[in-house]
Amino acid sequence: MTTADARTPASNQNDEAGKSIGWHKGYVQGSRPDLRVPVRQVHLTNGKDVTLYDTSGPYTDPAIDTDVRRGLAPLRESWITGRGDTEEYTGRAARPEDDGLKHTSPRRSPLPERSGEGGEGLRNLDAVFPGRPRRPRRSRDGRPVTQLAYARRGEITPEMEYVAIRENVAPEVVREEIAAGRAVLPANVNHPEIEPMIIGNRFLVKVNANIGNSAVTSSIEEEVDKMTWATKWGADTVMDLSTGRNIHTTREWVLRNSPVPIGTVPLYQALEKVDGRAEELSWEIYQDTVIEQAEQGVDYMTVHAGVRLPYVPLTARRKTGIVSRGGSIMAAWCLAHHKESFLYEHFEELCEILAAYDVTYSLGDGLRPGSIADANDEAQFAELRTLGELNSVAKRFGVQTMIEGPGHVPMHKIKENIDLQQAICEEAPFYTLGPLTTDIAPAYDHITSGIGAAMIAWWGTAMLCYVTPKEHLGLPNRDDVKTGVITYKIAAHAADLAKGHPGAQEWDDALSDARFEFRWEDQFNLALDPDTAREFHDETLPAEPAKTAHFCSMCGPKFCSMKISQKIRDEHGAGSTAVDTEFDAEALAGMAEKSEEFAARGNRVYLPLVD
Amino acid sequence: MTTADARTPASNQNDEAGKSIGWHKGYVQGSRPDLRVPVRQVHLTNGKDVTLYDTSGPYTDPAIDTDVRRGLAPLRESWITGRGDTEEYTGRAARPEDDGLKHTSPRRSPLPERSGEGGEGLRNLDAVFPGRPRRPRRSRDGRPVTQLAYARRGEITPEMEYVAIRENVAPEVVREEIAAGRAVLPANVNHPEIEPMIIGNRFLVKVNANIGNSAVTSSIEEEVDKMTWATKWGADTVMDLSTGRNIHTTREWVLRNSPVPIGTVPLYQALEKVDGRAEELSWEIYQDTVIEQAEQGVDYMTVHAGVRLPYVPLTARRKTGIVSRGGSIMAAWCLAHHKESFLYEHFEELCEILAAYDVTYSLGDGLRPGSIADANDEAQFAELRTLGELNSVAKRFGVQTMIEGPGHVPMHKIKENIDLQQAICEEAPFYTLGPLTTDIAPAYDHITSGIGAAMIAWWGTAMLCYVTPKEHLGLPNRDDVKTGVITYKIAAHAADLAKGHPGAQEWDDALSDARFEFRWEDQFNLALDPDTAREFHDETLPAEPAKTAHFCSMCGPKFCSMKISQKIRDEHGAGSTAVDTEFDAEALAGMAEKSEEFAARGNRVYLPLVD
Repeated sequence: MTTADARTPASNQNDEAGKSIGWHKGYVQGSRPDLRVPVRQVHLTNGKDVTLYDTSGPYTDPAIDTDVRRGLAPLRESWITGRGDTEEYTGRAARPEDDGLKHTSPRRSPLPERSGEGGEGLRNLDAVFPGRPRRPRRSRDGRPVTQLAYARRGEITPEMEYVAIRENVAPEVVREEIAAGRAVLPANVNHPEIEPMIIGNRFLVKVNANIGNSAVTSSIEEEVDKMTWATKWGADTVMDLSTGRNIHTTREWVLRNSPVPIGTVPLYQALEKVDGRAEELSWEIYQDTVIEQAEQGVDYMTVHAGVRLPYVPLTARRKTGIVSRGGSIMAAWCLAHHKESFLYEHFEELCEILAAYDVTYSLGDGLRPGSIADANDEAQFAELRTLGELNSVAKRFGVQTMIEGPGHVPMHKIKENIDLQQAICEEAPFYTLGPLTTDIAPAYDHITSGIGAAMIAWWGTAMLCYVTPKEHLGLPNRDDVKTGVITYKIAAHAADLAKGHPGAQEWDDALSDARFEFRWEDQFNLALDPDTAREFHDETLPAEPAKTAHFCSMCGPKFCSMKISQKIRDEHGAGSTAVDTEFDAEALAGMAEKSEEFAARGNRVYLPLVD
Repeated sequence: MTTADARTPASNQNDEAGKSIGWHKGYVQGSRPDLRVPVRQVHLTNGKDVTLYDTSGPYTDPAIDTDVRRGLAPLRESWITGRGDTEEYTGRAARPEDDGLKHTSPRRSPLPERSGEGGEGLRNLDAVFPGRPRRPRRSRDGRPVTQLAYARRGEITPEMEYVAIRENVAPEVVREEIAAGRAVLPANVNHPEIEPMIIGNRFLVKVNANIGNSAVTSSIEEEVDKMTWATKWGADTVMDLSTGRNIHTTREWVLRNSPVPIGTVPLYQALEKVDGRAEELSWEIYQDTVIEQAEQGVDYMTVHAGVRLPYVPLTARRKTGIVSRGGSIMAAWCLAHHKESFLYEHFEELCEILAAYDVTYSLGDGLRPGSIADANDEAQFAELRTLGELNSVAKRFGVQTMIEGPGHVPMHKIKENIDLQQAICEEAPFYTLGPLTTDIAPAYDHITSGIGAAMIAWWGTAMLCYVTPKEHLGLPNRDDVKTGVITYKIAAHAADLAKGHPGAQEWDDALSDARFEFRWEDQFNLALDPDTAREFHDETLPAEPAKTAHFCSMCGPKFCSMKISQKIRDEHGAGSTAVDTEFDAEALAGMAEKSEEFAARGNRVYLPLVD
């Protein structure tokens, strides 16, 4: 948490006696006028402020007029152009097959006609993004234009300063971690809209939310809405995993409106281009798709280059085979051609492309276990060793890289995953899906996986890919996205606490102080999900006075443990940091004396302490 | 899991071609006719059966006619009387103040009048339980009639055999663990209705659900309904934490209808008897309340005898003081009188009472931390050392004992809790509330605590006290109870897996097999919560054929990773245990050869493995 200047008041409640209660979007000013880091400024009823990390983007700033048809302002544009190492060029022309419309050109809108005004938010989006057209940008001379390259040569970019302020660390720490490959700052030069963030073991644990339509269901507007919804609740990055139609167009809408880095799996779109026939994939189609997406501004790409031909048979005796969609596509290709993976074979070429746009690798774990039975098996670890090899290659090309991890892993096998990954991949950031700690609870896999996620993040995972209640069952809706994000923010924060991240506990302390002092409104406003906390409280005690009452529904007004504790505090000194402390030194000394006396006399009956 | 004889079909679906699909209540026959252990028998569409632990009681057996007004059959009655060491006597007469009706005698019904028939389940319960009146039973000669006493003298009781079948271990293991004090089998001689269960580190991790009305809200019928609802979803024990009015009567209804052990905190009722004035409590009032509850059949009691006078000042500087209701009541009493706790002073007398009924101690952690800031502090551990001392005393009196644990603890401080407890308390079962791993998520504390619960159970906690989404905010309703129980069953099972409990993984394996083979109905029926799993699936793909379709909404019909895996399996041998395996040895050998070839050639580029 940092001190902050609450520039733009966005009170979520009426003021009382001139004092705003609730929270505001605030900004911390950096070293240049266009470097202002957003924060969530929570105003407590005791007059104090708590400053929290904010991922919600300009949407929560009432001073900014957002319009999904126009997209967000290109915050980083001057930073990117200012470096002088990129140039605009005439990009690859969009083609009908980019949207899976090969057989039905020309492009048609898959959505209802636009109904006049743009004021309806996401209703009735046109298929083609109507915002300002833009020529793509890439490295001027083929040299990497990545944050890794800058960090290596000692430059602290505005992006690095931005995340340093967000994380409350020195900019030099950010630069060092990126230069060492222990952290990534995903920031495609064609996605100037993002508010930079960093993924690395020394920083706050991050959460990714997956969105994406599929062949079966959902629409562009739903996906854009899910993206803003996910970031509102705390998603640090969003992956657009769309399959089926309108992949290109959906992604354009998402990118232009996203304040967070966007990740994709280019293989999904490549597969659509060959009508779902994995054997018809080729390096050329894949390469074309990567360039298409890099020009749009995708910040990181999952690449399943570790699924190598010799590993495919290792999955034959598994309980659940290959459960990664990308992994199984590559396995199918390898089998069909009986050839080494084209991703593995062309990995260096791929590095050159990614380096020219600063697209970050997320090296996919295509052979991750899909069940408790398959955890930590040879297929999984053989691929991990290859990812380690590819990580070294990527670094050589100056490409930022993180490594994806499982999956389904029982608790006692989790630590081996992060320990191996850190050793094999030179401490590159680990980015794990859960892991799910049991298979028996479909409809609750946000919880089965939230358990594993918290643990693996404590032990070093830098980013957690959320799992929603619909995992294994269907596509998540808005409620599922929210539940998934909140569950994973809990896991991430629990890990921040366990890692002793500087400042992490201040949030807990502020909320616990509010709880102890019966400041209900402060509890709600500090909660990860203020709406639900307030709603649950009101279910039992709906009356407005109950929110300031010094009791709660658990014990009722007659007896209350908090009241007794406050009495103890009054009588035996010490106190809340919020109220003035009346220190009854004499009483405390008397009690302490008795306590010591007892200890001296009674310690004999104690069993020895063993640690 | 055990083999089982599905005696009483209770199909939840229509039969197909004469074969029942879904699940049935089954029984495993023990060594005597009246010893039949219930199981949940899940019938899979591939003709196999999976047998799961069942806590739902006679309610899920259609062959048994249950009636909440009559109560459950006294399953253990002949076992208890057969031992010949107890006798009936004229118990303490119920008094109006037992129900908090001191000032309004005679007893009146707090509920609407009964509307004629009893067929309406829990609607319109009379206040006074109408079932068969019963004289209480206690030790004939003052010697302990506890499972601990029997175990120590080498007896394997029917209760022990019952839990041995449930846990799929030898009866001698059960006896040994109880005799050593490493496990408890809570079974008051006045609660013959229970289906015995065991709590200990060597057995399946158990889950307790709290119910209870409060001064502010809820009724008897709601509490009885919550109890059956909680056990339906897997609660192994239920604590009735009622405060306010009708405590005695609510408990009678709950006990007479509960197939699981019931725990209470007698101090809550004692406080009601003195109108909420902690300073007016006395050993006499407390003792009377314990006897009242022991005569009713309470199986285990939380006793906050570790909150000693010298420890009270240790809480003065805490962020959230004393958050345990029982702990703060005792602290208030100690402060008011400036005397040592009457529970601590009279602990031996209390042991004599509990031993005469086989009430199990749950030594309460009245000084548990209520916030991350207060975790593992001196107040908490000072009390734990006293609990160790009291554990030894209780054992001397032959009283079964478990130890309660926290609370709010960040992940990195959890292990110290279980390690200390096991060392100090001679490996007595630990029974923890979560712990919550962060304070920032009111409305999601089932999740913040489910994370800590899974971890501490892996490390040795024997029973987990659930936390519902309403924790800190209000009283749980039916939905909250279900969510709390399911979350904690996940934590418990994840721990069973991590501990390598024999047979635990079979459940996961059965579900993962079903998932891999697209046996959707089997997935639902094996799920912890079949209803919600089915509902979520149907939200995206509601059509009936989709439940047997070989694809799901995530990828759609065109491309499916599971299909590719099955192709790999077909081509490269090995197989499902369910379908016949076509082992293509030649192809597999060829692939393996290539794989080895690569490894020999390519290992040079791998980084060394470190473990």
